[in-house]
Amino acid sequence: MTRFGVNYTPARGWFHSWLDFRTDDAHRDLEAVASLGVDHIRIFPLWPLVQPNRGLIRERALADVVALVDVAAAHGLEVNVDLLQGHLSSFDFLPSWLESWHRRNMFTDPDVIASTAEYVRTAAAAVAERPNLLGVTLGNELNQFAAPPHPTPHAVDPHAARGWLETMVSAAREGLAAAPGAPLVTHALYDAGWYDDAQPFGPAHAAEVGDATITHSWVFNGAAQRAGGLGAGSVRHAQYLLQLAAAFNPDPARPNWLQEVGAPTNVVAPGDAPAFVEATVRGAAAVPSLFGVTWWCSHDVSRSLLDFPDLEYDLGLFTADGDLKPVGRRLAEVIRELRDAPAPVPSPTALVLEDAPLTRSACAPGGAFAAEWLRMAEEEGDAPQIILASRVGRAEQNDRGIVTVRTPPSAAGAPLPVSHPATTA
Amino acid sequence: MTRFGVNYTPARGWFHSWLDFRTDDAHRDLEAVASLGVDHIRIFPLWPLVQPNRGLIRERALADVVALVDVAAAHGLEVNVDLLQGHLSSFDFLPSWLESWHRRNMFTDPDVIASTAEYVRTAAAAVAERPNLLGVTLGNELNQFAAPPHPTPHAVDPHAARGWLETMVSAAREGLAAAPGAPLVTHALYDAGWYDDAQPFGPAHAAEVGDATITHSWVFNGAAQRAGGLGAGSVRHAQYLLQLAAAFNPDPARPNWLQEVGAPTNVVAPGDAPAFVEATVRGAAAVPSLFGVTWWCSHDVSRSLLDFPDLEYDLGLFTADGDLKPVGRRLAEVIRELRDAPAPVPSPTALVLEDAPLTRSACAPGGAFAAEWLRMAEEEGDAPQIILASRVGRAEQNDRGIVTVRTPPSAAGAPLPVSHPATTA
Repeated sequence: MTRFGVNYTPARGWFHSWLDFRTDDAHRDLEAVASLGVDHIRIFPLWPLVQPNRGLIRERALADVVALVDVAAAHGLEVNVDLLQGHLSSFDFLPSWLESWHRRNMFTDPDVIASTAEYVRTAAAAVAERPNLLGVTLGNELNQFAAPPHPTPHAVDPHAARGWLETMVSAAREGLAAAPGAPLVTHALYDAGWYDDAQPFGPAHAAEVGDATITHSWVFNGAAQRAGGLGAGSVRHAQYLLQLAAAFNPDPARPNWLQEVGAPTNVVAPGDAPAFVEATVRGAAAVPSLFGVTWWCSHDVSRSLLDFPDLEYDLGLFTADGDLKPVGRRLAEVIRELRDAPAPVPSPTALVLEDAPLTRSACAPGGAFAAEWLRMAEEEGDAPQIILASRVGRAEQNDRGIVTVRTPPSAAGAPLPVSHPATTA
Repeated sequence: MTRFGVNYTPARGWFHSWLDFRTDDAHRDLEAVASLGVDHIRIFPLWPLVQPNRGLIRERALADVVALVDVAAAHGLEVNVDLLQGHLSSFDFLPSWLESWHRRNMFTDPDVIASTAEYVRTAAAAVAERPNLLGVTLGNELNQFAAPPHPTPHAVDPHAARGWLETMVSAAREGLAAAPGAPLVTHALYDAGWYDDAQPFGPAHAAEVGDATITHSWVFNGAAQRAGGLGAGSVRHAQYLLQLAAAFNPDPARPNWLQEVGAPTNVVAPGDAPAFVEATVRGAAAVPSLFGVTWWCSHDVSRSLLDFPDLEYDLGLFTADGDLKPVGRRLAEVIRELRDAPAPVPSPTALVLEDAPLTRSACAPGGAFAAEWLRMAEEEGDAPQIILASRVGRAEQNDRGIVTVRTPPSAAGAPLPVSHPATTA
């Protein structure tokens, strides 16, 4: 069974609503979300509100998170809790003890790491015993902080980046020790991890740390600019990224979770959004080992809230007033059809990705490798799998049902730079 | 009558307690504060909690501020509300809409100015009708953000700085239109405004904008390093700064408010703190037009809260557990004696401060002008007033009771650089 869910953006007050948390509001929003037929939501506490001082983790903030998890349960929804926000929709939320006079590297400073791990452990423990806990993610796209184009990056090398992830995953597992089920512990990279050679967090981290490989598909990264909102390169982007992720998974059975995907209005015309949703979700559902798809997002951002990049206002399946949008109706229809569909038959063909060394920019939309995958998917009628060159001929190839491997022509094709919502909008 | 008050630092959770505001805690703290015989407190909402989005001013945050004002009233205390925090005890609190991807100049960006003014207007209106409202200050030492040593300053020129202050003071007055009394509208500079030639906010702004001239006296600025904790240059620093401020006041009757002064343990030994308090307050009380003295601060910061500069933990008159410290006992004694003392007789002698051009560094502790003032105060048995060279012989000289003016010898004496708590501790 494929999991379908929604990233929950509170209709009233956006994530600032944590400052005024009301279960009534959450009930209203999540009743609507549940009506779509989804099985889970992803929620986002704000780090500076939970841990405003390095030595203070607020009990009531965690109680509010637990209360929201319980509201979700009342509507039959499981919950994934992202812990460290961190970054949401162009806004950074770092606690004051990491900024200005107290600026220290969030990935490498030992005191910061210890206190961040304590937060992860404590927050995970707070929700550990909720029966509807799907999992915890360390935080939303924390790798945004690690390199440009972030305006003030916290530089970290790939080795230290892995160490940081492992420390935090361990802390989360400690916090979840009492969990009755087996909640997933994951971490989430924005797609520079896959596409940008300068990004210290990379595919190996995504595929080897935590319990699932997370992808976030945003076609404003060059995919839709190049292909058009409903072009193949746009509606197949999530599918491609999932296939790319699968290539790095050490175990073919490792869950592949498309944890964020949305229809950004700067590159997908609002009228095209339902078609974009349907094609994107169908494409994702054709990828083996798909764990689930979590749409971004539940509710539009109210226009009374200022300074968001324009596209961020209209990503909801519901308006800020709670009305179901055509895009939400279409998603619900697709979910109904696909939720219990049989597992897809993997393509017997795989495109070989050179990984010694790996050139991530070739994998970005417009890059040579990405272009060849897309050409094959469109022209040959079957979207190929992807296999790392170093794994060709190993047992894994058989396990994934790969019969034919194809080496891409050594193409030029300059990749597009990886872009960012705050700079593209 | 001289006003005596305390800067209120909540015993439990410091200013993060706004996230968990409880009137019980406030009652406990303010009952203790009132026992000192003070007549007012100064309070500090956190800007990012009140206005987390540029378009969102949280009603409940303002309701909490009003509730605290009412708790103070129950203990017979008036309240000054600082609006934009901004900066407190080495921590910066800027909303996410001013940081990172959304970084804009807080003093010059038109959208930011308009929304900041809206906050000031709305917050002032929220407290306007409280009968115990002493006043509003735009925010705590906002000029810290305007220049180095701030790590990421929001550069502004002196002309625009004045414009910003005037805009915000107007907004506060609009908000206070319904006030039954005449609450003071003020703004507060840290002492780089007086001592640092590179600081865009300066003495003229302090003396000409708003209803009173505010001074904050912190002897870790070089005064106590040079003089010793109980040396004349240390215990007379507040007095000197008040005299310096008086020199710039266009009207001799303009209130001079020593709104912050404390005994920082990095330069004043804890055992010396009671003597420091007594000498400092007596010195301040000898300055004509003194409006009041507001001690920093009510309660120690709990050591469970991390990352404060060491001196910030021990500035309280009470411990974090609520026990009265010797320094608090001594302050209460001095207040009892001085509160209703007759107005001081101004010194007939004034030291002339060249102001065309003004060299602020000469006024800093260790600077030539400051050194000469201190020498006269100590050796001649009477702390002189200060008069600007441009005002010698004008009516103001008579109004201030200045009979003799003395020009300082053209001294060398390199001034100490202005230091900052976050860098000195």
